[in-house]
Amino acid sequence: METKLHSIDLKNIKINDSFWNTYISLVDEVILPFQWDLMNDKVEGAEKSHCIQNFKIACGLEKGSHKGMVFQDTDLAKWLEAAAYSLAKKKNQKLEELADYAIDLIVSSQSEDGYINTYYAITGKQRWSNLLEGHELYTAGHMIEAAVAYYEATGKTKFLNSMCRFADYIYKTFGKEDGKIHGYPGHPEVELALVKLYRATGEKRYLELAMYFVEERGTPPCYFLSEEAVKTGNFIFPEFKDFGLEYTQTHLPLRHQKTAEGHAVRAVYLYSAMADLAYEYNDKKLLKQCDELWENITEKRMYITGSIGSAAHGERFTCDYDLPNDTNYSESCATIGLAMFSNRMLQITKDGKYADVVELALYNTLLAGVALDGRHFFYVNPLETVPEIAAKNPAMRHIKTKRQPWFGVACCPPNIARTLASIGNYIYGVDNDCIFINLFIANKAKIPLKSTSASVEICSEYPSNGNIKILISPDSSVQEFAVAIRIPGFSKRFSIKVNGDDVEFYVEKGYAYIKRKWKENDEISIALDTSFRFVRCNPKVRQNIGKVCLMKGPWVYCLEEVDNGKFLSSIRIDTGKEIKETIDSSLPPGIACAMLQGEKIDYTLVSEKLYTEDQPAYVSGNFKAVPYCLWNNRGEGEMLVWIREK
Amino acid sequence: METKLHSIDLKNIKINDSFWNTYISLVDEVILPFQWDLMNDKVEGAEKSHCIQNFKIACGLEKGSHKGMVFQDTDLAKWLEAAAYSLAKKKNQKLEELADYAIDLIVSSQSEDGYINTYYAITGKQRWSNLLEGHELYTAGHMIEAAVAYYEATGKTKFLNSMCRFADYIYKTFGKEDGKIHGYPGHPEVELALVKLYRATGEKRYLELAMYFVEERGTPPCYFLSEEAVKTGNFIFPEFKDFGLEYTQTHLPLRHQKTAEGHAVRAVYLYSAMADLAYEYNDKKLLKQCDELWENITEKRMYITGSIGSAAHGERFTCDYDLPNDTNYSESCATIGLAMFSNRMLQITKDGKYADVVELALYNTLLAGVALDGRHFFYVNPLETVPEIAAKNPAMRHIKTKRQPWFGVACCPPNIARTLASIGNYIYGVDNDCIFINLFIANKAKIPLKSTSASVEICSEYPSNGNIKILISPDSSVQEFAVAIRIPGFSKRFSIKVNGDDVEFYVEKGYAYIKRKWKENDEISIALDTSFRFVRCNPKVRQNIGKVCLMKGPWVYCLEEVDNGKFLSSIRIDTGKEIKETIDSSLPPGIACAMLQGEKIDYTLVSEKLYTEDQPAYVSGNFKAVPYCLWNNRGEGEMLVWIREK
Repeated sequence: METKLHSIDLKNIKINDSFWNTYISLVDEVILPFQWDLMNDKVEGAEKSHCIQNFKIACGLEKGSHKGMVFQDTDLAKWLEAAAYSLAKKKNQKLEELADYAIDLIVSSQSEDGYINTYYAITGKQRWSNLLEGHELYTAGHMIEAAVAYYEATGKTKFLNSMCRFADYIYKTFGKEDGKIHGYPGHPEVELALVKLYRATGEKRYLELAMYFVEERGTPPCYFLSEEAVKTGNFIFPEFKDFGLEYTQTHLPLRHQKTAEGHAVRAVYLYSAMADLAYEYNDKKLLKQCDELWENITEKRMYITGSIGSAAHGERFTCDYDLPNDTNYSESCATIGLAMFSNRMLQITKDGKYADVVELALYNTLLAGVALDGRHFFYVNPLETVPEIAAKNPAMRHIKTKRQPWFGVACCPPNIARTLASIGNYIYGVDNDCIFINLFIANKAKIPLKSTSASVEICSEYPSNGNIKILISPDSSVQEFAVAIRIPGFSKRFSIKVNGDDVEFYVEKGYAYIKRKWKENDEISIALDTSFRFVRCNPKVRQNIGKVCLMKGPWVYCLEEVDNGKFLSSIRIDTGKEIKETIDSSLPPGIACAMLQGEKIDYTLVSEKLYTEDQPAYVSGNFKAVPYCLWNNRGEGEMLVWIREK
Repeated sequence: METKLHSIDLKNIKINDSFWNTYISLVDEVILPFQWDLMNDKVEGAEKSHCIQNFKIACGLEKGSHKGMVFQDTDLAKWLEAAAYSLAKKKNQKLEELADYAIDLIVSSQSEDGYINTYYAITGKQRWSNLLEGHELYTAGHMIEAAVAYYEATGKTKFLNSMCRFADYIYKTFGKEDGKIHGYPGHPEVELALVKLYRATGEKRYLELAMYFVEERGTPPCYFLSEEAVKTGNFIFPEFKDFGLEYTQTHLPLRHQKTAEGHAVRAVYLYSAMADLAYEYNDKKLLKQCDELWENITEKRMYITGSIGSAAHGERFTCDYDLPNDTNYSESCATIGLAMFSNRMLQITKDGKYADVVELALYNTLLAGVALDGRHFFYVNPLETVPEIAAKNPAMRHIKTKRQPWFGVACCPPNIARTLASIGNYIYGVDNDCIFINLFIANKAKIPLKSTSASVEICSEYPSNGNIKILISPDSSVQEFAVAIRIPGFSKRFSIKVNGDDVEFYVEKGYAYIKRKWKENDEISIALDTSFRFVRCNPKVRQNIGKVCLMKGPWVYCLEEVDNGKFLSSIRIDTGKEIKETIDSSLPPGIACAMLQGEKIDYTLVSEKLYTEDQPAYVSGNFKAVPYCLWNNRGEGEMLVWIREK
């Protein structure tokens, strides 16, 4: 296997993108302080988190019982990871003090043997007694991820050392060997975290442990299902007990799984680790399996918004081509996991098809998960909703038609925060002497290469505008290296010039490679086709037959009631007619909205009868579509992605 | 209020209808013996009922614990009611012996004070301690209905007397007076049964008790919700505890409820009793409220198949115009309840709009609930299903894509049996000296009128054929009386002749009244328009926009995979083209099927991509539609009612 692409250090990249700045600045200015207050139970009107309180109790600083979910600790872990990315980009003494304080709490709660978990510490329940539901390894994984990020951001080792002790303890506890538990976590996450820990420390045993968890998964006897909690029927989550083995990806030995099944977040976290391990062990068979799983997701089970999880019950994949738009789950965390998995596959294979999905996930569902105020979040991301019906039909009781301040199970908000804070990781990839431009987010970066380094600046208003400039300056006067520019799958044509002139390049797997000697301020001009386009769904998806989805670059558009009135489902778009670009003054500046031509049923003429032989009358009209990621920022109302085609 | 219509005695009517005979003969020949064996746990492969066993234990004949649902006794009650209707029509010594044996068991299980219920008797739990969930009054109601039917069929009084003792005990237990429980049942049913008991016995207190339950319902303090089970959290059905007051129609005093809410079966059983009470007490305000509730159901919340209950969770109504086709509940029992409610309103008001809904419910969802073999049943009746997806998407886990032999909660199969056995009750109505022809099921009947009596014979192949002959013979040579013939709402034109000649008639509220002197074998010829028609749904129902439903008379048609291949949702019908009538040799003879012209996506040309800009290619084709009531009798497969219109 070739060397994989590496992200560049977040320290070395400064994002300056009119669209993304809105969200990225939210992380520092709003989300991190707000979530800190939430974890400290200081936000009125929001559900109590009790997360910091649990650590204080576990350390013996306070008295009380554990409250919140069994995996409540991960809220703090994800917050710390987000804080680390923020600190990597910019010094912030106050934030670093809070983080150090939180890390002190975590480390103080650590047992002699290295174990950390406030739920098991406070309740006194037996460790590892319920691998299916206990989330101890899942929580450990998030802690490890945070510790690696904090170490890389600050150079401080306290948290990392503490997590190495924890990982060493897990290594001693789990494994093939006699006397160890032959088990694996109900909720994968620790696997990818252990790979990160291996990469940060060079300690091979962490990699071995990750591989052990992957190889053991789903092999009979299914250790974690025979555990006490299961035998006694004393479930932590009794409502999940009939979910079956697919739910936890344990229905088959993991190496034999070729379709994405079960809980979507678990699946993509697991596949992310599998991709990591395929690379580290140069395991081509495992890599091929990862690609098969990825193809199964993206060509049969993924919403056009880059979200996954067709059903709320089990928050899970269902089957090929089952993509209901109004009862789906499409969890924000699952989209993040899909971006993580896709980005790993991109880094290993250098194939732009993976980058297309990373971009789809980030530009649509990730951002739809957070309001422009940074204080309200979606957990579930429908593609069609009618608030009056969602409020009354229990099949949609998981659907919120307004973003919520916080959740009892608060996985999504801090997950969104850590992803936004580290979005820089997705922009570039470096492979020896080649710089990969994966995303067109405007930024300035300093990129170390194998034999030199270069400054790169991306100037763009993408995807509102498809013209992108990239300024390249080698560190010494003239240097030869390659720049590989992603040509997104949606772009039907493109052009590339350097300093206004045609330039030699070749295209392979969705990247245009320019290899030349670069001098200061060489300007690459790329013209991508980000004109509006109507996309149709494979008609095996019955919900979308006869419908179109408007897109522009990676952006999916939707209709909202605030622009188009009620009964959005009655709108038919004439896809042959011109689409006019427009803006909306109540959305952030520079966002391209669309005016579509079509017709809508005239509800003033509709009779009171429920069933008649009459054809409804249509009236012509123009209909405004806005990027899906921005929906529900202008009040509650109907929303629709897949629009009927005239 | 005018005198209401009365049904004629089942003894006096002999059905001889090529379509209905199939089902009605099933009741005697298959369903009753089969269900008897089921209740005696003698059917291999079916879920154990334990119903008869519970009575044996309650009588002290056997030892053991109660098994099955808290309302398991009602299976026997509904079976006895069906058996009674069967016996009313035809002597059957063996059946009568089984019924008498069952009645002996029931009466032997009766306490000194009159109380009967095997669950409370065997478990020793405190009577009336959980009115919300205990189903004691619901069970009592079904027992009373059965006893009245058995008395009317056989003249035997043992069961009726026993139930009078039970009702007297309930009357002493519940009521406004001090010392009585100020409560009412979580599941309505006893109210309409008490009206039946009043009508059979003339004892006014039963009517008063029914009115008490109705008037008390939903008035604060909500007695049954403050009960012990609720206080202690010790629910019989913990999964229902967050259903809210609408679920049991207790969110408002019943007199203030104007929209149909909550559990659909409970709602329509309750409204049936309200209609009865409105008539008995000459309460015009209550009757108006019944009509408002009925209008809310039928013009805003009813499927075109005459089924109700848009959501599985709570088996309930949701809100106006929310009629999803593939996640609905549409319970067979709820359709029966809707027919009961509508028939009561028809009898009181003589308005054909109610008869239209009775007919819709009976000709579609009632019959869809039972297979042509009489041994398999649907509980839930979707209007669109893809078996592969229903099996995998938990939002459809209540949907069975094959009829099942029996259910743990076995309310539907015996409910279907009792309705089929008493279908004769729905055909005629008698009002003094007027015979109402409500349904066009072929039969011979002897009809007592106020001042005379007449023999009536309906000859028809309705709705396959809209030409109906009715032979009228007064008992003495010439008699004057009226015949009111229902002109269904769907029939855009009609003609009526007597003995081949035009005849004077007037039309009022959907009935054509012919008042004349009748002589032997006078022949009324009615031509109704039962040609195929395409019906469209109010576009406020977003699922059905752009779609049509094929109907013929009251029959709703559907497409099935067995005729039209997979991917039914991709079919578009050209509604301007001729519809050819056809038959299917594997369906019962005489059933009009339809060949529709249109086009379907050519799936051989569909790419593997999930999202593309390509338009799918269509190929022209003919598509066969069969009556919805007969779906799933030729193997498992996709089914679709609402078809896209070209």
